[in-house]
Amino acid sequence: MDRLSSTFSALADPTRRAILARLALGETSVNDLAAPFDMSLPAVSKHLKVLEGAGLITRGRNAQWRPCKLEAAPLKEAASWIDFYRKFWEASFDRLDAYLERLQSADATPDKPKPTKRKRRKNDRK
Amino acid sequence: MDRLSSTFSALADPTRRAILARLALGETSVNDLAAPFDMSLPAVSKHLKVLEGAGLITRGRNAQWRPCKLEAAPLKEAASWIDFYRKFWEASFDRLDAYLERLQSADATPDKPKPTKRKRRKNDRK
Repeated sequence: MDRLSSTFSALADPTRRAILARLALGETSVNDLAAPFDMSLPAVSKHLKVLEGAGLITRGRNAQWRPCKLEAAPLKEAASWIDFYRKFWEASFDRLDAYLERLQSADATPDKPKPTKRKRRKNDRK
Repeated sequence: MDRLSSTFSALADPTRRAILARLALGETSVNDLAAPFDMSLPAVSKHLKVLEGAGLITRGRNAQWRPCKLEAAPLKEAASWIDFYRKFWEASFDRLDAYLERLQSADATPDKPKPTKRKRRKNDRK
């Protein structure tokens, strides 16, 4: 699997995203990571393997205590990929704004679009 | 599957990401979408179903020509989720910068860390 696909695939699970959120607070052991989840250690380990495979975490070398650590580089790549589409979601919100403005204008006297009847209360009291 | 998981899952495939990239140029028919891929129409349709299920595309209602259209709202949510981790990848690059700076200093005379012997050629020629 290509790197971007394996990043997105690893993120496509709420438990794995929760593990990353926990690791954002600092590195920790598998036992501590497993504690808040109603899950067996092997189940948590399986999720950790997926995250490790995607390069989103690394494990310490100490055999007794192999702390997990967040690695953000793949997230940076994912963010860059998504960011290309920013103009599209920003455009959608611009269109929504324009639509709401049109609705408001339609509500007001046709020749005098502003101020409308639907101004804030503060203005109404003036 | 929760919305964020289904978004990331849909993005975890290079063909689906390529389809979104194509749709960023404008809405288009399934046939036109399928053309650049060495894939059967049913295979492309399957990918489109995944994208549609994740809310990343919508299909027009015209029975003859059901154009596919990019919908960026789920990408905005995914971007927001990832953005929380921005400080981590920025921190990694800061650490890398600091490390490279230390390397460069170690290379120079201890009491006069700059300018070092490893300056750019342009400076060496001065």
